[in-house]
Amino acid sequence: MTMVQRTSAECLGTFWLVFGGCGSAVLAAAFPQVGIGLLGVSLAFGLTVLTMAYSIGHISGCHLNPAVTVGLWAGGRFPAKDILPYVLAQLVGAFAAAMLLYAIAAGKADYSLAVNGLAANGYGDHSPGQYAVTSGLAIELVLSFFFILIVLGATDRRAPAGFAPLAIGLALALIHLISIPVTNTSVNPARSTGPALVVGGWALQQLWLFWVAPLAGGLAGGLAYRALGEDLPAKPAITGEPKPSV
Amino acid sequence: MTMVQRTSAECLGTFWLVFGGCGSAVLAAAFPQVGIGLLGVSLAFGLTVLTMAYSIGHISGCHLNPAVTVGLWAGGRFPAKDILPYVLAQLVGAFAAAMLLYAIAAGKADYSLAVNGLAANGYGDHSPGQYAVTSGLAIELVLSFFFILIVLGATDRRAPAGFAPLAIGLALALIHLISIPVTNTSVNPARSTGPALVVGGWALQQLWLFWVAPLAGGLAGGLAYRALGEDLPAKPAITGEPKPSV
Amino acid sequence: MTMVQRTSAECLGTFWLVFGGCGSAVLAAAFPQVGIGLLGVSLAFGLTVLTMAYSIGHISGCHLNPAVTVGLWAGGRFPAKDILPYVLAQLVGAFAAAMLLYAIAAGKADYSLAVNGLAANGYGDHSPGQYAVTSGLAIELVLSFFFILIVLGATDRRAPAGFAPLAIGLALALIHLISIPVTNTSVNPARSTGPALVVGGWALQQLWLFWVAPLAGGLAGGLAYRALGEDLPAKPAITGEPKPSV
Amino acid sequence: MTMVQRTSAECLGTFWLVFGGCGSAVLAAAFPQVGIGLLGVSLAFGLTVLTMAYSIGHISGCHLNPAVTVGLWAGGRFPAKDILPYVLAQLVGAFAAAMLLYAIAAGKADYSLAVNGLAANGYGDHSPGQYAVTSGLAIELVLSFFFILIVLGATDRRAPAGFAPLAIGLALALIHLISIPVTNTSVNPARSTGPALVVGGWALQQLWLFWVAPLAGGLAGGLAYRALGEDLPAKPAITGEPKPSV
Repeated sequence: MTMVQRTSAECLGTFWLVFGGCGSAVLAAAFPQVGIGLLGVSLAFGLTVLTMAYSIGHISGCHLNPAVTVGLWAGGRFPAKDILPYVLAQLVGAFAAAMLLYAIAAGKADYSLAVNGLAANGYGDHSPGQYAVTSGLAIELVLSFFFILIVLGATDRRAPAGFAPLAIGLALALIHLISIPVTNTSVNPARSTGPALVVGGWALQQLWLFWVAPLAGGLAGGLAYRALGEDLPAKPAITGEPKPSV
Repeated sequence: MTMVQRTSAECLGTFWLVFGGCGSAVLAAAFPQVGIGLLGVSLAFGLTVLTMAYSIGHISGCHLNPAVTVGLWAGGRFPAKDILPYVLAQLVGAFAAAMLLYAIAAGKADYSLAVNGLAANGYGDHSPGQYAVTSGLAIELVLSFFFILIVLGATDRRAPAGFAPLAIGLALALIHLISIPVTNTSVNPARSTGPALVVGGWALQQLWLFWVAPLAGGLAGGLAYRALGEDLPAKPAITGEPKPSV
Repeated sequence: MTMVQRTSAECLGTFWLVFGGCGSAVLAAAFPQVGIGLLGVSLAFGLTVLTMAYSIGHISGCHLNPAVTVGLWAGGRFPAKDILPYVLAQLVGAFAAAMLLYAIAAGKADYSLAVNGLAANGYGDHSPGQYAVTSGLAIELVLSFFFILIVLGATDRRAPAGFAPLAIGLALALIHLISIPVTNTSVNPARSTGPALVVGGWALQQLWLFWVAPLAGGLAGGLAYRALGEDLPAKPAITGEPKPSV
Repeated sequence: MTMVQRTSAECLGTFWLVFGGCGSAVLAAAFPQVGIGLLGVSLAFGLTVLTMAYSIGHISGCHLNPAVTVGLWAGGRFPAKDILPYVLAQLVGAFAAAMLLYAIAAGKADYSLAVNGLAANGYGDHSPGQYAVTSGLAIELVLSFFFILIVLGATDRRAPAGFAPLAIGLALALIHLISIPVTNTSVNPARSTGPALVVGGWALQQLWLFWVAPLAGGLAGGLAYRALGEDLPAKPAITGEPKPSV
């Protein structure tokens, strides 16, 4: 695998995450009478990761999220030198998706970026449910911690093979089911940065939280899983008493 | 496998896609109080493909969509000579499903084809959310591109075996979660043609978009996956330096 | 496996199908503001089959439905002599579930069997959306046909191993997404008979349709899959030119 | 695996179940216009178990529920001596999650523990739909019975490998689809105890039911599966006529 192919896959995949997740929120969540609501948006975010993980998992590992990339490094599964190119590719994909989504949404006469937004993340006055910054910090931290724990657990060689994309995608759906009212749900600095660059203003001012909390949660999750899974060999032979050579 | 069996499977499968997907939209989406909404319709479309792919995947490959058939050809996975019979079978199934759905829907006294429609695809005045033709073109193109990318990625021999129907079906559900408000979601010329032939008028006039964008997106997706996955052998031996014959 | 164990499993499983499916409809579908709606009921029916199929599939095959039992026989997968005990066990389970559900529902002061019902199936005046008997017949026939086709396809030895419960359960969810407004969705004579015995009156008078259509559809589906899958050996060796004995 | 690692996994997993399940209920279920409703809450509970089972199943078995721990013991799959540490760990995780959830919810100015609650379980006046205590007892008993039956069946060595977390998680989602209106759904004494300790008062007074019914149902389910699955060897050789030793 060349790094160009791997970062192209990350870029396309993160495009898909932002275009699909934020797209469903902007275009379909509040459609009159039959809108998909926060439940539909939660499923959409989860399915972007689930579908991409089955499709490009064998190319780039399908992180689509700087917190995942950093968490995998903390968990001892990803080399430090590849973090930067991965994160840059994710940011490019997220920004391109936000731009295209804005162009498509503007094809509806009464759409306005100021009023309808672009599913950017926020806290306080910009939290969908007006939750305080402390609530936002706490929930993003906890959810990112568990997200990385699930990523590491489900991709552990002792977990059932092939099911990790299912578990990870549905974990992201679950995370959105819990927390959209609090922060619009990030757990992913790239997903937050894309729309924030298009929306500007408050979205950029509040962007720090959506880098700090997911990265800190991801780091903690990576270290926690290491401790939880330490000394748990898949094959008993490895930890067996050394056979005395005759 | 005879071609008769394969095209019969494609015909039945596309019938199921249109009957199930458009059927849920026409019969159940806006049912008073407890209707399934766009979220239910999205899941229904996705589940038609998921269920058929597990059931007839081993017979025809379960394309159910000319854009998939063309995209698989572009991706080097399907022979050119089989494209035409597959597409014809898909169109027959889609048309039969639209006819039967119309007959069943008309069993409700206050149903009217002109008012309630048959879940045909449209843009501008016939977009559910009144989105411009440019938004329709862009979103159908992008979503078809990613759909084919996912089809090719999830059926790659390096992806986990057996999960492709899950990934592909849920990708179609996701695509609907994003885009029903824009075009009623096609990404599938056969799915668009079936209802359009029954509805006539505007639906036939706007049908061009739902052939052009999905086919173009499918072609691009097929070529993109080829580049993304090129030179990525599953078994190192295949690309290994040729062993000099002694 | 003794027949007692197999029929006990069918009885418990059909209890689960009726208790879970009809239970979600009676108890939760129309709960004020946050009710699960027809989408939730559809998922509930599907998940009863999905969960049971993973749990008792290795004991009884997990039919839970006379139309499936008959369809599997038509498809050449089930012995004729076991049909009667299976169907009787399914009916016992369905009736017991309907009785218990009624007792639990009656624990709410304002519940009334006459007004709130027990999710019995019906057509005409007793169709949720007032659909004519012809619509009911047609849709139950078509959906049962495809349900059995999916059951036979997904359990074909050429389909991916282990995914059949997923495909079959989600097929039942999809079937409900399409057709609850038309007949309250049966495709299963046992599921229809349980509540009808408790509700009585119109539900018993209209019960014939929910035996005739599912059984006819199941038979047709079984025969269709045989034709579709005929001469499709899993191992090429079987159809290979007969090796001339020397 | 050390017991510290196993109980840490149970503690974290039960935290996730309560934080995710009750969190979605408290924060997102009744969000204006686009709230996730009881359907979203049902999925959230199910997905907490699904995601954890894929992530820590290989560490602790992922019970997250005293009724599961006891049911597995009754089914002959778990040693009696490990019951107490597992249950204690589950209770600690559940209480910590309830505390954190309360702190986060209180970050919204108009949140009140007395009015908005913490998704505690109840019957009679504290049943969401005002169902009598007998309905609560019956439904918790039946649903716990089937939940343990599904846990034992799906993890049987004769069931398809790897799918148990899917079946068990979706079973919990189904159970919530049926019964939130009756008791707010427990089938899990730890899940009930966490919020009850924070809410106090009525929630503690009614807590007995959510220990008695799930544990009784779990015990019965464990014994029932033993009978249902008895003498069903995975390999025919085991039950074969004993080969006479020459």
